[in-house]
Amino acid sequence: MSTRLSQLFVRTLRDDPVDAEVASHRLLVRAGYIRRQAPGVFAWLPLGLRVRRKIENIIREELEAFGAQEVHFPALLPREPYEQSGRWTKYGDGIFRLQDRKGADYLLAPTHEEVFTLLVKDLYSSYKDLPLSLYQIQDKYRDEARPRAGLLRGREFTMKDSYSFDYTDAGLDLSYQQHRDAYERIFTRLGLEYVIVKADSGLMGGARSEEFLHPTLVGEDTFVRSAGGYAANVEAFTTVAPDAVPFDGLPAAEVHDTPDTPTIDTLVAVANEVHTDRGYTAADTLKNVVLALTDPEGNRSLVVVGLPGDRGVDMKRAEVAFSPNEVEAANEGDFARNPGLVKGYIGPWSAAGAVLGEASSTKIRYVLDPRVSEGTVWITGANEQGKHVFGLVAGRDFVSDGIVEVAEVTVGDLAPDGSGPVELARGMEIGHVFQLGRFFAEALGLKVLDENGKLVTVTMGSYGIGVTRIMAVLAEANNDEKGLIWPDNVAPFDVHVIAAGKDEVVYEVAESLVAGLENAGQDVLFDDRPKVSPGVKFGDAELLGVPTIVIVGRSAVDGIVELWDRRTGEREQLSVADLITRVGSKA
Amino acid sequence: MSTRLSQLFVRTLRDDPVDAEVASHRLLVRAGYIRRQAPGVFAWLPLGLRVRRKIENIIREELEAFGAQEVHFPALLPREPYEQSGRWTKYGDGIFRLQDRKGADYLLAPTHEEVFTLLVKDLYSSYKDLPLSLYQIQDKYRDEARPRAGLLRGREFTMKDSYSFDYTDAGLDLSYQQHRDAYERIFTRLGLEYVIVKADSGLMGGARSEEFLHPTLVGEDTFVRSAGGYAANVEAFTTVAPDAVPFDGLPAAEVHDTPDTPTIDTLVAVANEVHTDRGYTAADTLKNVVLALTDPEGNRSLVVVGLPGDRGVDMKRAEVAFSPNEVEAANEGDFARNPGLVKGYIGPWSAAGAVLGEASSTKIRYVLDPRVSEGTVWITGANEQGKHVFGLVAGRDFVSDGIVEVAEVTVGDLAPDGSGPVELARGMEIGHVFQLGRFFAEALGLKVLDENGKLVTVTMGSYGIGVTRIMAVLAEANNDEKGLIWPDNVAPFDVHVIAAGKDEVVYEVAESLVAGLENAGQDVLFDDRPKVSPGVKFGDAELLGVPTIVIVGRSAVDGIVELWDRRTGEREQLSVADLITRVGSKA
Repeated sequence: MSTRLSQLFVRTLRDDPVDAEVASHRLLVRAGYIRRQAPGVFAWLPLGLRVRRKIENIIREELEAFGAQEVHFPALLPREPYEQSGRWTKYGDGIFRLQDRKGADYLLAPTHEEVFTLLVKDLYSSYKDLPLSLYQIQDKYRDEARPRAGLLRGREFTMKDSYSFDYTDAGLDLSYQQHRDAYERIFTRLGLEYVIVKADSGLMGGARSEEFLHPTLVGEDTFVRSAGGYAANVEAFTTVAPDAVPFDGLPAAEVHDTPDTPTIDTLVAVANEVHTDRGYTAADTLKNVVLALTDPEGNRSLVVVGLPGDRGVDMKRAEVAFSPNEVEAANEGDFARNPGLVKGYIGPWSAAGAVLGEASSTKIRYVLDPRVSEGTVWITGANEQGKHVFGLVAGRDFVSDGIVEVAEVTVGDLAPDGSGPVELARGMEIGHVFQLGRFFAEALGLKVLDENGKLVTVTMGSYGIGVTRIMAVLAEANNDEKGLIWPDNVAPFDVHVIAAGKDEVVYEVAESLVAGLENAGQDVLFDDRPKVSPGVKFGDAELLGVPTIVIVGRSAVDGIVELWDRRTGEREQLSVADLITRVGSKA
Repeated sequence: MSTRLSQLFVRTLRDDPVDAEVASHRLLVRAGYIRRQAPGVFAWLPLGLRVRRKIENIIREELEAFGAQEVHFPALLPREPYEQSGRWTKYGDGIFRLQDRKGADYLLAPTHEEVFTLLVKDLYSSYKDLPLSLYQIQDKYRDEARPRAGLLRGREFTMKDSYSFDYTDAGLDLSYQQHRDAYERIFTRLGLEYVIVKADSGLMGGARSEEFLHPTLVGEDTFVRSAGGYAANVEAFTTVAPDAVPFDGLPAAEVHDTPDTPTIDTLVAVANEVHTDRGYTAADTLKNVVLALTDPEGNRSLVVVGLPGDRGVDMKRAEVAFSPNEVEAANEGDFARNPGLVKGYIGPWSAAGAVLGEASSTKIRYVLDPRVSEGTVWITGANEQGKHVFGLVAGRDFVSDGIVEVAEVTVGDLAPDGSGPVELARGMEIGHVFQLGRFFAEALGLKVLDENGKLVTVTMGSYGIGVTRIMAVLAEANNDEKGLIWPDNVAPFDVHVIAAGKDEVVYEVAESLVAGLENAGQDVLFDDRPKVSPGVKFGDAELLGVPTIVIVGRSAVDGIVELWDRRTGEREQLSVADLITRVGSKA
């Protein structure tokens, strides 16, 4: 096949679009692959559609290789199933809702767990029907607060979403692994670097969950990884807690007047005045942070988190730790209503032996960072204005209502699997595999009869790949200052032939070259524009990013053309016949 | 390729779905091709998706054959372009509207004229860029008042919509013809009978417009056709008006007391008492019907239509004739406000020589059916209670404000092209080609520079095919009491192989047959279900509708299998090798 550039619906732009923050957005618009329609909503031009189809087909092939079957759901779905799962409410402002002419509620589905569950319930009833993996490639909608970076975070985007159905946990493990393996094959075929990180399962609940992150500076996620192979997103990172140590013989805690020390810095300074030989740092202090939680019914409550003074609370980790509550810092009103919380001097202990928060009308939960293990010794607030307590021993002088993972992760923290210290990196989520477990099947009543004729609830997995985002990530990873450089298997065309010159022989040779390449099974883009200069044609070729370019120029008269590798920039002169052989053998 | 029925996500149903009114809906649900999600909204199962893809690919091939290029727009679009074209309001309740979290208005696009226009405006600026034909295959949304008949009229459905761009009228004619020809090829390849009818261009405005109707009893449209080749939808039918005849020497009109004759029937009876020798029929009376029009700004006005008494007003034709007004019968309030309109006795004339409607506060327009031509003589109302006028002559005693085509079309009416009397038939619209002209380009400012460097407004065409509706129409046209019978080129599989029996040899032969057919390029559905009886398997095969079935049964031990033509019911015994040759040669 071949397409003439003179006929192709494309127009390259010299200038970057004003709203483009990242290279992929800039280049995909400039090269005529996509066009913005509304914030986070794009139209696909012929070049963009070609690349997208190739990505989709690679995904299809790898999913069908293990038996997943394609179906297609509407984007417009009724409220009821999402009401049954609780997600109609949980999604908050993040989805598009609408009503039909009769006032019935609908949504534009952001994911389809509910209706896949109902479909399987509708068709299947026996363990013999399982395992089952279904998928669709479909346009999804999310009303993002801040759509950004072109296709990287849109409000309409294309996803491949799969769902697996099993009746045993072992079955789910296998289905999960099949998807995970397929994802590895897909990203490998796409030439996309990826890291599989342990993930928080977010809204979905469920057991095992991993994200495929593509490391990139434009990524939205921070993840941690160790040289020894550990990887997790920050929300899923777990702290290595020190072993408990005996506290027999440790001196009793002592309260000191420490006026004007409302911060960790001032406290450390004062502490080093009190005991000039200890060399205290922030890590020796126990910081107590008050958080306000709002549960799904809208009830607000407070919790105090104790953590080493050299760490802050990571609010994303806190959201996960306290899920399904929403989390924010306590405000002035919270403090006013709880006079027992003495701002700047909060501790798990007081000179009067009062339990934290006892002075307030409601008992406030007190939870600890894992580092505050039994036998560790701390300087912390005394719950009295201007006073701190020194030598307070965890497990002896105070206890907690639980351990939580909310502290910031920092470079050098130890990976929980013993693989050494971690570093922090930026990544873009390109895939996600979840073990949903029985949540949706319970909510929607999906049960099958097992071998013993007993009704058992089905266990599910959910697996997503962002098709349009992958296109952006590929563009982000494959470009230079001149334009895009597509990997061979997703390039919009196999070869870009340029007729460079005005002589008739140039066009004659180019035409026969194009015909020869077509016969060799190549899909050719032919820049046949008669009145465009070679320089402009070269620039357009560099911008469009077909990886293999052939220039038919002055030497055409001698049957010689030039093979130009867009990625390396290398150019080589070849006879037409040799070129067809060389390029054709790639098919 | 092959697919094992034991693994395929499908479940056939014995019973018809309760909401299914038509065969296609009933069978597509029972055979496991689609499943209802909400009124007029369906999910596609693997079998349905396969058929749909084949239809889409036939459409793609025929459009690309003349150079149309595929793009893809979002379904979610901002209000502004539709506001500029006036369609945001015009669509009324017929579309889904929604707001994003910032309160900005969006719609789920029912068609995409506006944004295609803007896209071309964005990219192109010269006559050299034209002609251009772009298309997309995309999910569309319409908030139908009465979604019905499964896929025949859904609220979410898939359409191929194309748009052509030219800068001369001749260019538009050519683009229109290219689409029209492609549509003929598409429907021919799909084996779908079609009639091309002249159409009203509805909301769109514009010049030439034709519909492709598939004649079917479940069709929603009535169309007329003559044996001589004329075809039009009822809205587009034009009446053959009698020539004007001289009225010199005709007697003067005379008013008669005709109490208690408020209807045409009673009037005809009384008229035949007044003149016992004339043999009057309803066709001799002039009926005057009062209609209320509401313009796009919401202003209501009345119009009186005069037409032969043997015809009623066809409200669909009236909608077109009075477009863009909405039309309904005048109500009691309208009559009360206009005492000059004497119900049952309305005429274009009164004994006092009063002009129709003169007694009312506003002048009311009076329009005529084309049959009321100059010199025709009528019995009609005298605008006085209980009085009619006889011998009233059109052109002598009354005139009109215009001619309108609103009368019912009936069997035997003459086709306007002289091809004889028409019959009426039911059809389903499967395609539509429109000359939009410059309406959208004007509204949205799409101009290009012509050969003389002058800015000219682009002229456009719009062309639609209902992909999912075509699937339903195909199912409607290809079934029997046992199930579906797909045409070869859209069947979900090429061959359906049934292992009929429990003997090991049956499965051995079936497996080798499937492998052989795969090698011969066939896409095989293999009913390998071990515990299902041959009878059930045969019934499922008939229901699923793959046109070529192979039964591997008792004779398998002798290497003999049975080829079963689903359409004719013929069965033939063949050796495995002969069967592979026979069936494989179809590829």
